[in-house]
Amino acid sequence: MSASHVRSAPPVAEPVRQVPEAERLARVALSCAVEPGDGTTSSLIRQMGAERALAKAQSATEGEPGEMLAQRLAELDPVRQLDQAARCGIRFLVPGDAEWPTSLDELDDAITVEGFGGTPPGLWVKGPMPLTELATSVAVVGSRAASVYGVELARAVCEHLALSGVPVVSGGALGIDFEAHNATLSADGVTAAVLACGVDRVYPAQNRPLLQHLAAEFAVVSEQPPASAPTRPRFLARNRLIAAMTSGTVVVEAALRSGALNTAGWAESLNRHVMCMPGPVTSYTSKGVNNFLREGRGTVVTHGAEVLELVGAAGQYLVDPPRGEHRPRDALTPTEQTVVEWVPVSESAGVESISRLCGLALRTTEGALRRLRSKGFVQLTAEGWRLVPDV
Amino acid sequence: MSASHVRSAPPVAEPVRQVPEAERLARVALSCAVEPGDGTTSSLIRQMGAERALAKAQSATEGEPGEMLAQRLAELDPVRQLDQAARCGIRFLVPGDAEWPTSLDELDDAITVEGFGGTPPGLWVKGPMPLTELATSVAVVGSRAASVYGVELARAVCEHLALSGVPVVSGGALGIDFEAHNATLSADGVTAAVLACGVDRVYPAQNRPLLQHLAAEFAVVSEQPPASAPTRPRFLARNRLIAAMTSGTVVVEAALRSGALNTAGWAESLNRHVMCMPGPVTSYTSKGVNNFLREGRGTVVTHGAEVLELVGAAGQYLVDPPRGEHRPRDALTPTEQTVVEWVPVSESAGVESISRLCGLALRTTEGALRRLRSKGFVQLTAEGWRLVPDV
Repeated sequence: MSASHVRSAPPVAEPVRQVPEAERLARVALSCAVEPGDGTTSSLIRQMGAERALAKAQSATEGEPGEMLAQRLAELDPVRQLDQAARCGIRFLVPGDAEWPTSLDELDDAITVEGFGGTPPGLWVKGPMPLTELATSVAVVGSRAASVYGVELARAVCEHLALSGVPVVSGGALGIDFEAHNATLSADGVTAAVLACGVDRVYPAQNRPLLQHLAAEFAVVSEQPPASAPTRPRFLARNRLIAAMTSGTVVVEAALRSGALNTAGWAESLNRHVMCMPGPVTSYTSKGVNNFLREGRGTVVTHGAEVLELVGAAGQYLVDPPRGEHRPRDALTPTEQTVVEWVPVSESAGVESISRLCGLALRTTEGALRRLRSKGFVQLTAEGWRLVPDV
Repeated sequence: MSASHVRSAPPVAEPVRQVPEAERLARVALSCAVEPGDGTTSSLIRQMGAERALAKAQSATEGEPGEMLAQRLAELDPVRQLDQAARCGIRFLVPGDAEWPTSLDELDDAITVEGFGGTPPGLWVKGPMPLTELATSVAVVGSRAASVYGVELARAVCEHLALSGVPVVSGGALGIDFEAHNATLSADGVTAAVLACGVDRVYPAQNRPLLQHLAAEFAVVSEQPPASAPTRPRFLARNRLIAAMTSGTVVVEAALRSGALNTAGWAESLNRHVMCMPGPVTSYTSKGVNNFLREGRGTVVTHGAEVLELVGAAGQYLVDPPRGEHRPRDALTPTEQTVVEWVPVSESAGVESISRLCGLALRTTEGALRRLRSKGFVQLTAEGWRLVPDV
């Protein structure tokens, strides 16, 4: 990771165009008929616009590769889709809308990961929070089968982000995702879930209270139309949105085949910050993170403050380099520090010997030794001066 | 870390010169009178040879900066020092001796760390093992106040190195150092300790059995003459020898102010491999290692095999990239894998829907679904096909 990607100015500042209704409806149709992460469709939309891309997809006839897509499109009524969604409190965002996360547009230029890629035709959103609030946000992702260690880390990092006013984006899954949302909410922070299924659906069922709360108070986001079921390819496609919508991705815990590493790969591909929290090399749920770091990918982070330092603007969140605990010797004068360094650890030495070792005059050395004795650092035995153990 | 530093050919292969007795005695005198890690003396020796460097040091008169050194040298009898050492079974090695670790000569060109540096005038060695056996060795160092986690890691790595015939060098201290020596010995490996005190001394006292065993069967090494006491500066100077004598340094556990990080800094300065074993970010004794990695220094290693891969010659020890555990789906045919990916996770779907999603013909999809059912991956309910949970 090198380039700093900070969007402190919300996308609202970008020129917002009035999106023609025909284009919006074309994007609804493509969003409903095309599987997410289909780079070919994204390229077509980019090259010729959504309306012409739709017309091209509709024109495929029997026996052509796009036949099934054309059939699906023929069955679709985008106006009705949009109305039904609106009745459920779901809005459909497209590029050009004030609320559209322009960072998603970078997906069109990013290298694909596992065959998925491209800017989605649109986003289905449920919840009162405008997505502009996620302009400078952080993704916190990790294993579903998280350990206590991972859950603790996710909680600590998200609390720190929440208290600093930085929104947390995650995938609404069990384990680390759940804790990321939950800890952010507990700390009165802002959080949104990006799902692999429709935003009106609940998956996994155990997270129903969380997902309903997010949809009621914040935002639940998907490129999948309402009612869509979660499938594994849709999870992989979804991960690119989490990486693209945020300034950086924190991987808290991940086993070797964890989907969180897929999200990290997307963050890498998009030049976002990839932040990894290492764990015990003996822990199954840290093997993926540790191996990712071993490959020289990602930056080690151990605390929320280090996450902020990376994703913030230059100088916005500075972290003091970590220091060891203060030691009693740190309070000594330079002369005393020099002398105490040369007092033997496991035996006694005469003042002449110590004076010679530390290169200070006999009188200076002796004075320092007496002061060190009064401060409890050294003791005078029958054989000479020696260190007091454990000081 | 980038450059590969492997010394598979023992230093014996280098041209060995007959070291004149006068030079050897001059080095004995300098070794006894000068504190270790004194780069000025090392530079003088290199520029003008040991005899002339000694003569220069002896010539300092009252009031000159080197006065105390000259006094010490005047009191010394190097012949007697050498005889006394020999009677205790201690030999004195100098550059040019067949057994001299030529890798130490690189210290003259390395950037100093915390003010220490330079090739030592000589090495005092106790033990039957020739130091040539350490030609391709690995340093394993870490916290004295090690945790169970660190001790387990040190044991596992050193056992692996021992079983592969790679010697382990450490500092004979408590904690990780002790376990490094001990585990290597338990696995019938080769190990040597480099001390900050004289090789006839025992520090820390708890490690008496270990250090006596190493001196009797392997080698204990120091640049300090016999009878020297351990002091903190001598530990810092000693660390450079551990880094220089080995092909790479593994830091198992280290708190933020750990001496093991000083050794790692020396390995870095010498272009040796710096290998770090990450640990819980919540663990006091891993904070130093994790922070070192955070600074982009060192390579993550999680297993002895990964250590060997780095320090071995190209292709000598190859490690398969770590893989997640084999999953039942891995054994499916490509078509079955495609189809199973599109069977919904939390509901049932008809074969037409699945066929459309995966882009395969209805007949192909149906055949795959039936085979997947017989293999236990999917089930057919009244509503359609769905995944069997947890497969």
